[in-house]
Amino acid sequence: MSFRASVLTLYPEMFPPMSKGPLGHSLAGRALEAGQWALETVQIRDFASDRHRTVDDTPAGGGAGMVMRADVLARAVDHASPPGDPRPRLLMSPRGKPLNQARVRELAAGPGAVILCGRFEGVDQRLIEARALEEVSIGDYILSGGEAAAIVLLDAVVRLLPGVMGNEASAGEESFETGLLEHPHYTRPQEFEGRMIPDVLTSGNHAKIAKWRHEQALALTAERRPDLIAALQPVTK
Amino acid sequence: MSFRASVLTLYPEMFPPMSKGPLGHSLAGRALEAGQWALETVQIRDFASDRHRTVDDTPAGGGAGMVMRADVLARAVDHASPPGDPRPRLLMSPRGKPLNQARVRELAAGPGAVILCGRFEGVDQRLIEARALEEVSIGDYILSGGEAAAIVLLDAVVRLLPGVMGNEASAGEESFETGLLEHPHYTRPQEFEGRMIPDVLTSGNHAKIAKWRHEQALALTAERRPDLIAALQPVTK
Repeated sequence: MSFRASVLTLYPEMFPPMSKGPLGHSLAGRALEAGQWALETVQIRDFASDRHRTVDDTPAGGGAGMVMRADVLARAVDHASPPGDPRPRLLMSPRGKPLNQARVRELAAGPGAVILCGRFEGVDQRLIEARALEEVSIGDYILSGGEAAAIVLLDAVVRLLPGVMGNEASAGEESFETGLLEHPHYTRPQEFEGRMIPDVLTSGNHAKIAKWRHEQALALTAERRPDLIAALQPVTK
Repeated sequence: MSFRASVLTLYPEMFPPMSKGPLGHSLAGRALEAGQWALETVQIRDFASDRHRTVDDTPAGGGAGMVMRADVLARAVDHASPPGDPRPRLLMSPRGKPLNQARVRELAAGPGAVILCGRFEGVDQRLIEARALEEVSIGDYILSGGEAAAIVLLDAVVRLLPGVMGNEASAGEESFETGLLEHPHYTRPQEFEGRMIPDVLTSGNHAKIAKWRHEQALALTAERRPDLIAALQPVTK
């Protein structure tokens, strides 16, 4: 069975086939057309119960903004993901656990994902608990809603699905797959505005090239992301 | 002068007006239509010099994938951002400094951004150095290209532009703006599947509500993001 994504949103028109965007073009878009994964969008508003199709209400205890109602969202989640659905149910939220490449790989190896896109101030906490939603954050910044985050998560997952990347070797050498940021890249022309490709890369000595790249990756990671170096140590000791 | 974004990409059709996506609907889309920010896309391929419109070549030193050429990209960057352009030039890349809400606020307070979306294995290092590109990462995972990351960055920035958010109070209380993850939210109905809104929130005692929310935010942050608590300490001591 291939990877099947259900996205619950107030803006299904942000996703293919209604709007192409990053998931409708290039790698993810071609894989979608080829049937290597499937994408369904669910309009949350269709599960409101009043004639104004209300999905939110004012926060209990006061404060700015609006909160998405547990009862409306529960109906939408249960419609997209009935009991027995083996797919994880994710809520895109800055309160979530930070997404990383290891979690992306797990998701890509699974049957798919049900992805709820939050809007407004957030989602009623009781829905998160009652439907065991896994809160996922793509980074330490605030978006206008979970839709752009869902697109990022799906783009990251889809490129790892079987058959999607033309060049499988590419996936293993990139940033985070080795625990380090990636070494610098160079290509033709040999000279660009007086800057040359480093000699070692044109030496033909593969052992020296591999050593240079590893040293560059280590130095860059130590400079920019000492947190990644610290996380490495238990493995390399 | 309002915020002006130039996105350099091989897939301009992923962005408004060609494809609406997250930047063409809702908050960012309405602000774009209202002229509260401006978005220009630049097709990198238009700056290739051969009749096949080649933008990439094999990596110097060998290895999988392809590298985007410095000379082609330099012409595209110089076209979008001539000398004297006050806007920062960003390269969306997993090797970059992690984006956070403080950097989003800085960008929103500035004149705009020139955003280069990488593809393939990466971009020739000499271009990054010669054009002083700021590498920005939206998180520790690999995308098929920088386009979804550019959409995330712009969505985060646009909601902070003057006049874009209807309810200005909302921006100040959310996750990261206080240094903590946000407290849980509740709204009607009072009872959902046997679960009640916590009594304190319906008590009408605003001091108690504020205290409860702060305690909840602290506890959630300590559980999920001890790194954020550690970063707080110099401020709260």
